[in-house]
Amino acid sequence: MARTTGSHSDITGPRVREAALRLFAKGGYAAVSMRAIAADVGVQAGALYNYTPDKQTLLFDLMQSHMMDLLDAVPDQADAPPEERLRTFVEFHLSFHADRPDAVFIAYMELRNLAPDNFARIEALRRDYEDRLEAILRDGQKAGVFEVADTKIVTLAIIAMLTGVNTWFRSGGRLSLDEVSRQYWDMVRKAVAA
Amino acid sequence: MARTTGSHSDITGPRVREAALRLFAKGGYAAVSMRAIAADVGVQAGALYNYTPDKQTLLFDLMQSHMMDLLDAVPDQADAPPEERLRTFVEFHLSFHADRPDAVFIAYMELRNLAPDNFARIEALRRDYEDRLEAILRDGQKAGVFEVADTKIVTLAIIAMLTGVNTWFRSGGRLSLDEVSRQYWDMVRKAVAA
Repeated sequence: MARTTGSHSDITGPRVREAALRLFAKGGYAAVSMRAIAADVGVQAGALYNYTPDKQTLLFDLMQSHMMDLLDAVPDQADAPPEERLRTFVEFHLSFHADRPDAVFIAYMELRNLAPDNFARIEALRRDYEDRLEAILRDGQKAGVFEVADTKIVTLAIIAMLTGVNTWFRSGGRLSLDEVSRQYWDMVRKAVAA
Repeated sequence: MARTTGSHSDITGPRVREAALRLFAKGGYAAVSMRAIAADVGVQAGALYNYTPDKQTLLFDLMQSHMMDLLDAVPDQADAPPEERLRTFVEFHLSFHADRPDAVFIAYMELRNLAPDNFARIEALRRDYEDRLEAILRDGQKAGVFEVADTKIVTLAIIAMLTGVNTWFRSGGRLSLDEVSRQYWDMVRKAVAA
């Protein structure tokens, strides 16, 4: 029985995560019950608890995985010139976020539903990511190629601008992601230029 | 009885709106019942229906009022130079949004919970607002003072960047809104410069 549960759980895990992401993004965390997630996956509600102790943990795990994936994927290119690193960051951020709209939506919208200690852990991961961009801006400032008054503010402004693309971008729309990326790079490049 | 209900309703209306805004922003539209709103206001659930036919209408009214207030308040200054109009728009957007964080949060987060016809009406108001900024960018482009590849993209990028301030700005924090505004204007000015 223990082995059966274990192997079921291995298969069910990704399906639970996929269903929870999709249902939370559509209806909101608070409105989606564990029972509704189980029904979507096609298992009994009880079976879900083999995978996660509760809905709060499930939400936290989804947000934590999203942030860890983001931090794992962000290019490390410390030796390149700051302008090249900034361009790579802009292109990376847009393509990473365009690929996972539900996870991005949840990562922003459901912060209010995290328990305080879970919130603090997600905020710390988010700051790690912001620090990656801020380091590029600081290096560019030191090198005299960027002119920005407050690197923290510019970091938050660039991230908000880029993430906003997710609210309107649809692949197959008027513009390709490459074209969108080119235009955002153009704005960012000019906004920080010395 | 009808007159009593009428005058109660006049007084209750703003309190219902205030409570609904605050509770929707905190817990999410789907998780907040009409009963919870009534309890917060201190009236019976039935009394709420003197004010609004249902929760969907209440959500739509809150979002519509927010957008109408925004459109009423956005400065009309068609005769000023484009750069001055853009600066005024940036300052206006930041101060209007900083003043009403709950309404702004709901206007973005709860779009998914609007019925399709309500969604279409809110989207139309949002486009009206975007058009105000895009007109400034187009005029600046024609006058040769702005250089932007696609005025629609730049419009959406600027609005996302400015609205993002609401996720971190707190009055009494490290920077005043005036200082934040000055820095955002600096980025926007450079991003669109010819």
